[in-house]
Amino acid sequence: HPAFYLLCFVPVGRCKAEWRPNNSPKLMDLLDDTVPGIGTYEDFNTIDWVREKSKDRDRHREIANKSKQSTVALLFSISDAFSGWLLMLLIGLMSGALAGGIDIAAHWMTDLKEGVCLNGFWFNHEHCCWASNETTFQERDKCPQWKSWAELMVGVSEGPGLYVVNYFMYVCWALLFAFLAVILVRAFAPYACGSGIPEIKTILSGFIIRGYLGKWTLIIKTITLVLAVSSGLSLGKEGPLVHVACCCANILCHFFTKYRRNEAKKREVLSAASAVGVSVAFGAPIGGVLFSLEEVSYYFPLKTLWRSFFAALVAAFTLRSINPFGNSRLVLFYVEFHTPWHLLELIPFVLLGIFGGLWGAFFIRANIAWCRLRKNTSLGHYPVLEVVVVTLLTALLAFPIEYTKMSSSELISELFNDCGLLDSSKLCGYTSNSGSTSGSVNATAANGLGARLAGPGLYTAMWQLALALVLKMVFTVVTFGMKVPSGLFIPSMAVGAIAGRLLGVCMEQLAIRHHERDIFRGWCSPGADCITPGLYAMVGAAACLGGVTRMTVSLVVIMFELTGGLEYIVPLMAAAMTSKWVADALGRESIYEAHIRLNGYPFLEAKEEFRHKTLATDVMRPRRGDPPVSVLTESGMTVEEVERLIADTTYSGFPVVISQQSPRLVGFVLRRDLVISLENARRHQEGVVSMSPILFTECDPPMSPSAPPAVKLRSILDLSPFTVTVHTAMEIVVDIFRKLGLRQCLVIQNGRLLGIITKKDILKHMAQMANRDPDSILFN
Amino acid sequence: HPAFYLLCFVPVGRCKAEWRPNNSPKLMDLLDDTVPGIGTYEDFNTIDWVREKSKDRDRHREIANKSKQSTVALLFSISDAFSGWLLMLLIGLMSGALAGGIDIAAHWMTDLKEGVCLNGFWFNHEHCCWASNETTFQERDKCPQWKSWAELMVGVSEGPGLYVVNYFMYVCWALLFAFLAVILVRAFAPYACGSGIPEIKTILSGFIIRGYLGKWTLIIKTITLVLAVSSGLSLGKEGPLVHVACCCANILCHFFTKYRRNEAKKREVLSAASAVGVSVAFGAPIGGVLFSLEEVSYYFPLKTLWRSFFAALVAAFTLRSINPFGNSRLVLFYVEFHTPWHLLELIPFVLLGIFGGLWGAFFIRANIAWCRLRKNTSLGHYPVLEVVVVTLLTALLAFPIEYTKMSSSELISELFNDCGLLDSSKLCGYTSNSGSTSGSVNATAANGLGARLAGPGLYTAMWQLALALVLKMVFTVVTFGMKVPSGLFIPSMAVGAIAGRLLGVCMEQLAIRHHERDIFRGWCSPGADCITPGLYAMVGAAACLGGVTRMTVSLVVIMFELTGGLEYIVPLMAAAMTSKWVADALGRESIYEAHIRLNGYPFLEAKEEFRHKTLATDVMRPRRGDPPVSVLTESGMTVEEVERLIADTTYSGFPVVISQQSPRLVGFVLRRDLVISLENARRHQEGVVSMSPILFTECDPPMSPSAPPAVKLRSILDLSPFTVTVHTAMEIVVDIFRKLGLRQCLVIQNGRLLGIITKKDILKHMAQMANRDPDSILFN
Repeated sequence: HPAFYLLCFVPVGRCKAEWRPNNSPKLMDLLDDTVPGIGTYEDFNTIDWVREKSKDRDRHREIANKSKQSTVALLFSISDAFSGWLLMLLIGLMSGALAGGIDIAAHWMTDLKEGVCLNGFWFNHEHCCWASNETTFQERDKCPQWKSWAELMVGVSEGPGLYVVNYFMYVCWALLFAFLAVILVRAFAPYACGSGIPEIKTILSGFIIRGYLGKWTLIIKTITLVLAVSSGLSLGKEGPLVHVACCCANILCHFFTKYRRNEAKKREVLSAASAVGVSVAFGAPIGGVLFSLEEVSYYFPLKTLWRSFFAALVAAFTLRSINPFGNSRLVLFYVEFHTPWHLLELIPFVLLGIFGGLWGAFFIRANIAWCRLRKNTSLGHYPVLEVVVVTLLTALLAFPIEYTKMSSSELISELFNDCGLLDSSKLCGYTSNSGSTSGSVNATAANGLGARLAGPGLYTAMWQLALALVLKMVFTVVTFGMKVPSGLFIPSMAVGAIAGRLLGVCMEQLAIRHHERDIFRGWCSPGADCITPGLYAMVGAAACLGGVTRMTVSLVVIMFELTGGLEYIVPLMAAAMTSKWVADALGRESIYEAHIRLNGYPFLEAKEEFRHKTLATDVMRPRRGDPPVSVLTESGMTVEEVERLIADTTYSGFPVVISQQSPRLVGFVLRRDLVISLENARRHQEGVVSMSPILFTECDPPMSPSAPPAVKLRSILDLSPFTVTVHTAMEIVVDIFRKLGLRQCLVIQNGRLLGIITKKDILKHMAQMANRDPDSILFN
Repeated sequence: HPAFYLLCFVPVGRCKAEWRPNNSPKLMDLLDDTVPGIGTYEDFNTIDWVREKSKDRDRHREIANKSKQSTVALLFSISDAFSGWLLMLLIGLMSGALAGGIDIAAHWMTDLKEGVCLNGFWFNHEHCCWASNETTFQERDKCPQWKSWAELMVGVSEGPGLYVVNYFMYVCWALLFAFLAVILVRAFAPYACGSGIPEIKTILSGFIIRGYLGKWTLIIKTITLVLAVSSGLSLGKEGPLVHVACCCANILCHFFTKYRRNEAKKREVLSAASAVGVSVAFGAPIGGVLFSLEEVSYYFPLKTLWRSFFAALVAAFTLRSINPFGNSRLVLFYVEFHTPWHLLELIPFVLLGIFGGLWGAFFIRANIAWCRLRKNTSLGHYPVLEVVVVTLLTALLAFPIEYTKMSSSELISELFNDCGLLDSSKLCGYTSNSGSTSGSVNATAANGLGARLAGPGLYTAMWQLALALVLKMVFTVVTFGMKVPSGLFIPSMAVGAIAGRLLGVCMEQLAIRHHERDIFRGWCSPGADCITPGLYAMVGAAACLGGVTRMTVSLVVIMFELTGGLEYIVPLMAAAMTSKWVADALGRESIYEAHIRLNGYPFLEAKEEFRHKTLATDVMRPRRGDPPVSVLTESGMTVEEVERLIADTTYSGFPVVISQQSPRLVGFVLRRDLVISLENARRHQEGVVSMSPILFTECDPPMSPSAPPAVKLRSILDLSPFTVTVHTAMEIVVDIFRKLGLRQCLVIQNGRLLGIITKKDILKHMAQMANRDPDSILFN
């Protein structure tokens, strides 16, 4: 049709002129209004960021235009502008309240494993004894109202019987909690298991997983998180709190049209919700925002930064007003150190960094290997049994050792703590404390350096800590990935804190015993600490967490918010940097990325640079020698032909060209939109038969009057598909995909369409280049 | 040439096969090696981010490949990987040291206006009296060693003579300093004037301004910054410190090939340097990084985030070890508040936010109007006179009022401060303090609420503060933009702090006088403050700074780092949010963006969304009706023809098409590369005459042996130019330009080249859409 071709070709032509004046009906407006389903996505598919953002801009433009016409519309426009802030407020309030509830419930149920309060079963150990008048400061954790199970059931209050009954009850409760947790997850919300962060990363990058952030997941995850944490398994609640906050955000989005209808806007809200999750987990709002920015988010405009910060603050203050830790503190582990650190201490700090990096690399490999084993063997068929067995082993081995018996967060808290003179903890079992009673405080303080020499209490503590370290390491590897909610912030930090404290005490004893040596000169002065073993624990925790998650700035900032002093940032930074370098040298992926890959999600990592020298032509489909790419022509095809093409192929979209002979690109049409439109036409448009022509053109070509009516589909045609040339380096293509959030890109040479590159093609190519299995990418 | 066309068309063709095996000589490798000048940029031009990043990846790839071959190359590769960190360390050290030097020098010279130390002229007032034995705690700032000029010159120590001589000397010194500053800037480094942040923003977005970050600018800016600050003008050193840090970074980049040769990598370093600047200005490393991220940077990958943080920390600690404030504190204004704030106080805080927003909007408009006046009238021809006159007026009016006489940072420090019982400041002139001597402290503390009633001292202070507020506002407007280094962080904060303190004292007196009313019940308790006027000052400072710069998260975080407590984040956030909303409602641009626009820099703002409904076809050149776009053909043109085309046009690049009749895109060639290559060919290639054909093709078309040798230019051809279709919405085009950092983009329809869109076209279009003068964009 050369005449027709010329007519429609020039943009200032007749059809163009006809088309422009009627207020440019933009593609998206039509989509929203006409056929339902067009412009939405299927489960396990990737969204089109460009289209979603366009949709939002159109929406905004419409509201702005209307707002000039009437006061009601103006008010609506203002309320629309502030709805984002309102949503943030609600997310902050809801997540803060839920986190507070989880904290309180987990605390109570953890204590329930040991005993019960006679004043009211709903009191936890601490509250029970706080309320009692018979509690002395020396024995804060003993009061007649709090009965261990042995005391209550058997009536004994001493001896091996007490121990055995308590042991038994501890294991029973742990098994009950874990069993309940896994059963609930299995029955009601399979998505509630794990930490959720890998999936949230994938969702934020533009993937659709229906129900992952739904109300059932929220309810079940909240309940089972409490159960799982209370069961004493080696897991934390910090990662799952991010998931809980994202569920809140997703549910609250339903009340705001702006966010419900737009997948890109929803993801902005979810990015903020991740910040909220970390903010309530640690009481660190700035750290939370940076965590979201650094670790989780994909598209993070500055507007989101500010809103995330607002939501994180609201959540933190909500949590504080609930006051679950009973100390008015915002942070999970509040620490105050008094002794400055010495420059030479950077050596042990760097050693801790190396340990953290090694632990991170080891943990990721071991955990992934274990998860693969679970996936590929029959182990995966018995998730309930697995959880029960692991819980049984954990409980059996944890009870005898003081430091594994207590919850991980209590342990970390104790390890971070600096030893005061009145501290009753075994970790503070220095010679001065071990023999001191309350009266002799002043005497020991004046005792000089000897007061800090390790006593027998400390030696015991060290052995128990070393044992706890090994147990924690093993159990964390097998626990993360089980079918219960499980975070790994706290277990990783616990491993690091134990290692750090051990090193710290060693350094301290070294410094005291050799305080006259040159290198330690000036470290120790009578009455003060030489060094702070608690700081080592903190540095170790940061290093191990960094090794596992590869967080950097956010990690240091979270730790900074815990201590509140810039003083200790340098040790933290040294350890975090070393840890990241060591871990990166042994494997580039963080645990989250490793799990994303394990699950085959289509996630285009923004951090890793694509460094290979391939061109677009090497990646595009069809490959060399394959038949040419399946295309539609802008006119000349019939409904039947198109339907056959759809049935024969599985592509998620088709390029539209001028003609098969002259494959010059006109636009791109999505499979889903095409299917829906054709069904719709067959059902609702009169006279549409298999022989009806399909037209993507602006103006109708001349047709005989007896021909069946044409199906006009220009409205679903994307007239501005992204294109690259065959010579474009793949590194640039990857960059474009990442930055613009594309799903596919057409490849042209000298104006002719040659092929197509989808996100999945890129991921497969990257897997191939890294010598991994390219078929591990499962979804579109 | 249909046969030739077919031959070269298919990517698997003969020529392709010939071309691929020789290790794919990538475009950039050739550019680096062959003709000097190709791949570089002219002054006042925009860089090509994609090309620069490609270049860096190529470089990295080459090093990685070589590192497998020999140990030396491996070591080189490791040192290359760590050179970024080393550079950061050096920038941190250098900037920290310079900032420390500037602080000390400015402090000393500010005091020099008032007097001199007899123990040594190099002591400032505080040091002079600290070293003296005769200083009492009550009169910290008086000691016999410190002589005012009147005491020294006239010998009087009291009476009006003293005042007049001191007044005269103050004005003289101020004039001298300001005159020196402006003369030095004029003579040696015109780029050293102003705050530098607008230009740095532009440079970071990919613009080239040669010499703006050079060594002369650094030296002169450092010296004149000290002079300008000491002269008592209403300006701060915080913005210029960012410029100084960037100069350091740029100079240090010269020692690292990786950064010297690559404009994109250099900009990563400069982003980090901006963080360093703010870090040393306020002692707030995290705030500095967020400032760089939020306010200054354009391209900020996560790697840069982590490195910026490192550099910012190094700088902060370097500054602290220099200890210019003599208080071992990292931060510029260290404050500690003790009284919690009440929920109802949010109302005055929001009022302060509104004030801050109004001030911001007013300041921007007034300052831009004043700058336009300077630009368009003869005022601009006398920069030295302008500075001298403004200094004269400032000094004359500032001396009589205590709060304008002291330096702005001292003023802010005093306003932020909470009144202790021993405070001698007039701002603490409460009834208790005004009558109290050192002995009666306990008596007044028990005095109950009456102790906090305003005394005569406080009333005087209030009047003086109100006057100072007006003066500061007026002088800040005329000062910012003069030909001396001038920042506006401190003046803006001073305005806000004064307003805040005034409101704070009013609120305090209101609460005390009506403490029995319901709304104030529980605010006041005997012996403690009812409210903290210092907190109001801080909130006001944040609000005003936010109104002027539109910072959000970074502002709150900087303030948080000053106080170190999350407690006061909510007031700060409320004020910052209100301020931003109010200011944005009155004008979208921050002062920096306004100055960028005033200067006509091609800056594509990342924050502002493009909300218009235009298409690529509306923006591209040629416009409708214009002659078609100037193109080169891939073969068939002679040297003469191309040279004529270059001479006739001013475009910075030309698309290369298959033929004039079939304008199907092959690639894009930059004007600069073309000119250099042709000159080079004429000079060095044998037999090249005007009639020599120019070939952009892969393989040579058949030619007669007698024809002159062809100039082969495929190596300078960009085979993967970015293209969009005519139907692409401009919002998407703008997004692509921003995110990928493009300079130009070709517009095609159905495979045919129709036009070109450059960054300048987009900026002009945006200006047009916003009803501004599109010709205000001056550079490419």
